[in-house]
Amino acid sequence: MTNTTVFWLDGRLVEAGPPLIRADDRAFLLGDGLFETIRVADGTPRHVDRHLQRLTEGAAFLDIPLPYTREVLTIAIERLIRATGTMDGTVRLTLSRGSGERGIGLPERPCPLLLMTIVPMKVDGHAPIALATARETRRNEHSPLGRLKSLNYLDSILARREASRRGADDALLLSTAGQVAEASVANVIVSFGGKLWTPPVSDGALPGIMRGILMETIGIMERSFRRDDLDAAEALFLCNSLAIRQVGSLDGRHLSQDPVRLGELREAGGFGQPVEG
Amino acid sequence: MTNTTVFWLDGRLVEAGPPLIRADDRAFLLGDGLFETIRVADGTPRHVDRHLQRLTEGAAFLDIPLPYTREVLTIAIERLIRATGTMDGTVRLTLSRGSGERGIGLPERPCPLLLMTIVPMKVDGHAPIALATARETRRNEHSPLGRLKSLNYLDSILARREASRRGADDALLLSTAGQVAEASVANVIVSFGGKLWTPPVSDGALPGIMRGILMETIGIMERSFRRDDLDAAEALFLCNSLAIRQVGSLDGRHLSQDPVRLGELREAGGFGQPVEG
Repeated sequence: MTNTTVFWLDGRLVEAGPPLIRADDRAFLLGDGLFETIRVADGTPRHVDRHLQRLTEGAAFLDIPLPYTREVLTIAIERLIRATGTMDGTVRLTLSRGSGERGIGLPERPCPLLLMTIVPMKVDGHAPIALATARETRRNEHSPLGRLKSLNYLDSILARREASRRGADDALLLSTAGQVAEASVANVIVSFGGKLWTPPVSDGALPGIMRGILMETIGIMERSFRRDDLDAAEALFLCNSLAIRQVGSLDGRHLSQDPVRLGELREAGGFGQPVEG
Repeated sequence: MTNTTVFWLDGRLVEAGPPLIRADDRAFLLGDGLFETIRVADGTPRHVDRHLQRLTEGAAFLDIPLPYTREVLTIAIERLIRATGTMDGTVRLTLSRGSGERGIGLPERPCPLLLMTIVPMKVDGHAPIALATARETRRNEHSPLGRLKSLNYLDSILARREASRRGADDALLLSTAGQVAEASVANVIVSFGGKLWTPPVSDGALPGIMRGILMETIGIMERSFRRDDLDAAEALFLCNSLAIRQVGSLDGRHLSQDPVRLGELREAGGFGQPVEG
């Protein structure tokens, strides 16, 4: 983030130094909140309705009153894109339960905070990903957090760091029961037996927006996989709202590319020609 | 937090409105950091060395450079207590990885942030705790976060909320394997077969400061428990740096009080006579 920027905080579009948050904010103190990352392509935010739907449902589950209607947020996203002249980039919405007394009990009168920031960037690359199965940590399929895009991202940070140390680009996370769950910030798609599959939410996969779109549009089905099953996969892909990528290797073992499948996935996901990266 | 307060931020004691944090701080965005809560009794912070030792080890594990020496932090804690005239209360140290670029990758040049706040309060009560076994979530014993006092506290928040909805004061969390792990913000001590036990870290228990003190001073031993085992316990206690409490009931079933054991634990933990609460 540069020193002067445009952001949207608590109902207002602001052009100033970096936005500031009260240090008694529960997102800062306890990770008590949610976020969404929305792709902007050709100046247009993608799948805003689905992102705001998930944010609304997550906030309801966590008892965080969403302080703005979806209509207001939709307009705010458009304003932020226009004010910054962003053609390609990402908008991040961060919803916090807001300031609170000491401790983990819920505040009696919550004052939630909603921050929206935008970063210009090319969000879709085409280089295949080197994936390494995380040994240091696992997804907790027994926690409802696995189904929410919560601010508790340290496990993902640790898994990504481990992958990085082992010379890979990203980590494949298993559930505590040893099933394939997802990558650190993306869902996994497995080409197996001539069909496309993705691990179920009950195995620790986030119900990702792009995952949902691909399940609806080209009929990707849910199926549990053990890590060893993936050795028999024809190809692997990662998807999230920002990109659909081919996995080039898993734990150092080369995986065959399937440009036809990749093209099919990209088309169904609303991605165009891959950009460099 | 009132509107004017005294806090310690990035090396300086500040008397001002609430401290403000940049919104690109990774603690706010990703829960990427650690904290410690230190009891202040009779104007004296308790077990500062142990808290700073755990913070130092946790920061090293997460690759967050601790921006101040333990000597500087010890003096800062004393200054904060004196500046606020706090006799009884808690000091909270929050260490964040600081500002970063978008995404979960580690910043090449980290600029960590350390905030220290103080709240005056009576931190030790004597009312027995009604405990309810959490059904909605579990501790992940496969994640290193279980051994760190990280900022990822949403599972604890959800467990406490569930307990509250069921008329209890706090939640007992099980590991994903179904072993007893800990309460939402405290370790569990089990009086069983005439001896005192506590679940091992490998079952999802935080290596709490007070837990460590009690293991060293009165020889509490580690032992795994299933939830059902606790029905045969003679008594249950919860301990953290701020309090040692008797558990009065578990899932609605009355548990016998053991004031002798409680007194023994309180003495070993450096607590005096219980205060109201």
